[in-house]
Amino acid sequence: MEIIRSNFKINLPKVYQAIEEADFFAIDGEFSGISDGPSVTALTSGFDTPEERYQKLKKHSMDFLLFQFGLCAFKYDHANSKHVTKSFNFYVFPKPFSRSSPDVKFVCQSSSIDFLASQGFDFNKVFCSGIPYLNQEEERQLREQFDEKRSQANGAGALTKCPVTIPEDQKKFIDQVIEKIEGFLQREEKRTLELNPCTGFQRKLIYQTLSWKYPKGIHVETLETDKKERHIVISKVDEEERKRREQEKYAKEQEELNDAVGFSRVIHAIANSGKLVVGHNMLLDVMHTIHQFYCPLPVDLNEFKEMTTCVFPRLLDTKLMASTQPFKDIINNTSLAELEKRLKETPFDPPKVESAEGFPSYDTASEQLHEAGYDAYITGLCFISMANYLGSLLSPPKTCVSARSKLIEPFFNKLFLMRVMDIPYLNLEGPDLQPKRDHVLHVTFPKEWKTSDLYQLFSAFAVNTSKYAESYRIQTYAEYVGKKQESKQVKRKWTEDSWKEVDRKRPHVPGPCYHTNSFTAAGIVGKRTLSPDPREAGVVDRESEGISDPELEQTDYCADPLPEGRKKAKKLKRMKKEFSLAGSASDSPAVLFEVPDTW
Amino acid sequence: MEIIRSNFKINLPKVYQAIEEADFFAIDGEFSGISDGPSVTALTSGFDTPEERYQKLKKHSMDFLLFQFGLCAFKYDHANSKHVTKSFNFYVFPKPFSRSSPDVKFVCQSSSIDFLASQGFDFNKVFCSGIPYLNQEEERQLREQFDEKRSQANGAGALTKCPVTIPEDQKKFIDQVIEKIEGFLQREEKRTLELNPCTGFQRKLIYQTLSWKYPKGIHVETLETDKKERHIVISKVDEEERKRREQEKYAKEQEELNDAVGFSRVIHAIANSGKLVVGHNMLLDVMHTIHQFYCPLPVDLNEFKEMTTCVFPRLLDTKLMASTQPFKDIINNTSLAELEKRLKETPFDPPKVESAEGFPSYDTASEQLHEAGYDAYITGLCFISMANYLGSLLSPPKTCVSARSKLIEPFFNKLFLMRVMDIPYLNLEGPDLQPKRDHVLHVTFPKEWKTSDLYQLFSAFAVNTSKYAESYRIQTYAEYVGKKQESKQVKRKWTEDSWKEVDRKRPHVPGPCYHTNSFTAAGIVGKRTLSPDPREAGVVDRESEGISDPELEQTDYCADPLPEGRKKAKKLKRMKKEFSLAGSASDSPAVLFEVPDTW
Repeated sequence: MEIIRSNFKINLPKVYQAIEEADFFAIDGEFSGISDGPSVTALTSGFDTPEERYQKLKKHSMDFLLFQFGLCAFKYDHANSKHVTKSFNFYVFPKPFSRSSPDVKFVCQSSSIDFLASQGFDFNKVFCSGIPYLNQEEERQLREQFDEKRSQANGAGALTKCPVTIPEDQKKFIDQVIEKIEGFLQREEKRTLELNPCTGFQRKLIYQTLSWKYPKGIHVETLETDKKERHIVISKVDEEERKRREQEKYAKEQEELNDAVGFSRVIHAIANSGKLVVGHNMLLDVMHTIHQFYCPLPVDLNEFKEMTTCVFPRLLDTKLMASTQPFKDIINNTSLAELEKRLKETPFDPPKVESAEGFPSYDTASEQLHEAGYDAYITGLCFISMANYLGSLLSPPKTCVSARSKLIEPFFNKLFLMRVMDIPYLNLEGPDLQPKRDHVLHVTFPKEWKTSDLYQLFSAFAVNTSKYAESYRIQTYAEYVGKKQESKQVKRKWTEDSWKEVDRKRPHVPGPCYHTNSFTAAGIVGKRTLSPDPREAGVVDRESEGISDPELEQTDYCADPLPEGRKKAKKLKRMKKEFSLAGSASDSPAVLFEVPDTW
Repeated sequence: MEIIRSNFKINLPKVYQAIEEADFFAIDGEFSGISDGPSVTALTSGFDTPEERYQKLKKHSMDFLLFQFGLCAFKYDHANSKHVTKSFNFYVFPKPFSRSSPDVKFVCQSSSIDFLASQGFDFNKVFCSGIPYLNQEEERQLREQFDEKRSQANGAGALTKCPVTIPEDQKKFIDQVIEKIEGFLQREEKRTLELNPCTGFQRKLIYQTLSWKYPKGIHVETLETDKKERHIVISKVDEEERKRREQEKYAKEQEELNDAVGFSRVIHAIANSGKLVVGHNMLLDVMHTIHQFYCPLPVDLNEFKEMTTCVFPRLLDTKLMASTQPFKDIINNTSLAELEKRLKETPFDPPKVESAEGFPSYDTASEQLHEAGYDAYITGLCFISMANYLGSLLSPPKTCVSARSKLIEPFFNKLFLMRVMDIPYLNLEGPDLQPKRDHVLHVTFPKEWKTSDLYQLFSAFAVNTSKYAESYRIQTYAEYVGKKQESKQVKRKWTEDSWKEVDRKRPHVPGPCYHTNSFTAAGIVGKRTLSPDPREAGVVDRESEGISDPELEQTDYCADPLPEGRKKAKKLKRMKKEFSLAGSASDSPAVLFEVPDTW
């Protein structure tokens, strides 16, 4: 279901209902760009630490706009053993609410825009019809503005308890207004009086004067003429009428406020449900969602983790799941489109899915990839297939694994880290893995060099014979990190001395910027061996010993009709073994190349 | 005529012809935003110097995209005494030419986007169908890339004159390729040989090896398979065939290059024509045009002036013209829409205009404002009306004044400066006006203060009695500028000491950033008295003495049938008088308020 500005309000109850009923959601975002630095591959390094990666994404990706948000709600229909979906495709745009509201600037990356254009993306739906939104701080400010306006109109506050100081040059003007009003109050037949348009400052003086002089009996409001000139209208009202009008106005303001908060209300509802939210390679989606609809991202990764688990208590990344045992060995390509295709084939079993009444259904054969609603939908399908596959390995097997099953708990709150060699995921619930990097070398080389030059370097010399040359440098990863820390400290000292001049402009970038290119010599580092944190593998451990604990699946709604097979137990054994490998990288040497260029 | 990516190439000859024939052009641009700082009014100050204004616009506006460019070519039809127009509305977008070409990032400002959306702007025409372009440096780089590729393919260059060094691990691969080719060369019936897809590095090695081993008799090229895998195809060719193929390839590359340069070719043609280019409030249009289609703007205003007069030797700003005598007194509102309406009434005479055959005509009654092609069209109309009005003041009067008339020369190469109190224009051909600012006060005050507080301050105190208080400060403009210079010097010294850390990030921002709000107390500074530089007023001077010099209008094509009147001579006298006033501001006091906030 496509939701734009014009049909948002009328469909919001449907969205709320879908969120209320759902077992879990899948989400996806489309952005106006990916990275505002050089290309993403140049910016990120295969040996980024999670902290470094977070800082890079925060610095180089948050200025883009999340302008299409896909939400697919999945609910299991027990009677008919099928999943019922409600899929929404929202177009969002930070349309300024009023002249005083924030005027958001965002960056577009032409390659991303061009890619979306080639996929038939409708930009007019974003820019002309996007649903507005406010983050929490903006919402608070707007609420305050309304409150202030109301208290001013009501004559509340200390200012109006005593006569107002009228500037000399305004005295004549105010006296004339008072005279007019006195006349108006004396003529019984007239109910309202319209004053001439005047400046905002003059209107303020009138409001203050009147609320002091006539605390009761009149109602004062500012209206706009056809020519957009603001003028004050005064009406005679009894107390009841005055209250009724105020309540009416208050209700109207509340509605305006809700309209301004707009799409953020959907995100708040998802967050407040506390239900599982599934995404594919979802780190950027999560960062953008929080940044755009809650608040600017925190400086520090740990704060980000705290904030994220607070907003979305249960997240699951299907790309991480597909890259982890037992899926890793049977899934070659974990891109969403390829994953969706693969999971239709044995040993996987595509789930029975139907779209709810009144919701258009997606046809996975026609591939509407990169429409956020569709991507969310197939992400959900992938999750169900993989979760059910885990169930099929149980003894007795389960054909249908719930979103609250302990079987999938090892995957909760771990977000896939793209192109990091030896750290599979960002762990939202605790410290991140710290792989040993004894086998990693760091090479600094002239920026003119190409990949082939590096191949030649390593094929022509043994590393030890030419550790230092004029134009390039080879050091161990440990040396590299040590020196980087050192320079960071020198930098920080310098920064502290001169914080006023520097910090004001870029307060949260602790270190210098590196233009880092990282490669690994082909075939030297093999396919990575990645699994969720071993500390959470207990459940699988027990499973692998053939114990079928009803508590494990206590919240499940599916029966497990199939008997356990020995083969599956073996698979789970391997799963367990690989869990314990997580974080200890292989011993093959790898290289991390750095181009000493600034950008 | 609407021009997008798909119909650009076919219509380019029409554009060139229009430029070739035209007497003058009018241009207009639509942007993705105006200012990336706070609001434009907060950013700019009524007392900016031209240098300061240039720096602010450069810093805060050049990251936006000029995405619609209007060009209207005007040609006078002597036989029928009417202007014939050819109007073009181009949509432009920096679609990346290839994976290695620049991936332009640009900023959008939601208020600007929302405004354009409300005017019915079609964003899909920009993002999905915009004409690509390259600036001069990008064009040079692409040309180099093509040359390099060609020289590599031709086996030119030193590398291939001797045996290539093949890395150890590639030797086996290359040997196998050579063996395959030897076999292929021996079998007469086969004309082509397709190698298996391989890496770019391997292809380079193959190219180098073959151009050394078989400098003649074979043609080597890289093609893509259906799966987008690149592989090498070798064909047997005689010398003639080889040359023909190379020429074919060269021609194809030239076409690709031209396609990539795209819309910049239109700008180059306008620039190369050397003809008069008219715009309304055109400083930002000119800055964006140079920035986007020529090169990043220079650091320094004087360099910008030089560059601009080099690219566009004759510019004329209709907003400046309308704000200057003799128009100033008879034109109240100089916004484009209002100006166009005003110039239809007496004493102005709307020109006879017709769109050329095959060009859709605009109806000024229907007001398609903010479509760049339309805005360019009515800007041209305004120019003609105002130029003709100047002609009507001559003795004998001229009904039709040419774009090359000396009458309009005083307006050449002076660009209107928005909201600067006492400097009407940026003078592209020399130093700018330096008004005395003895009557200007500079007030620093708490950011919570509102305009009314300032009114109160100045109505309650004489300036001298409370020159320094705790929360605000009043100083003369001269003191303010002096202190600013001082702090700039301190800053610069500091910057020089630590240039490595600071300059790298923001090399061209000499001073700190001020959040400057400027107001003038209402009525204190009157409507400004602005005229082109007095040094260029000679022509009007002579005119006012009633001399009708045929040389003055030597390039004119219109006859001057009407006799001179005394009233007009009087008007020109006033014109002359006001010219001499330019740059010397009135003696009334004004205030310049600065909020001491950082942003």
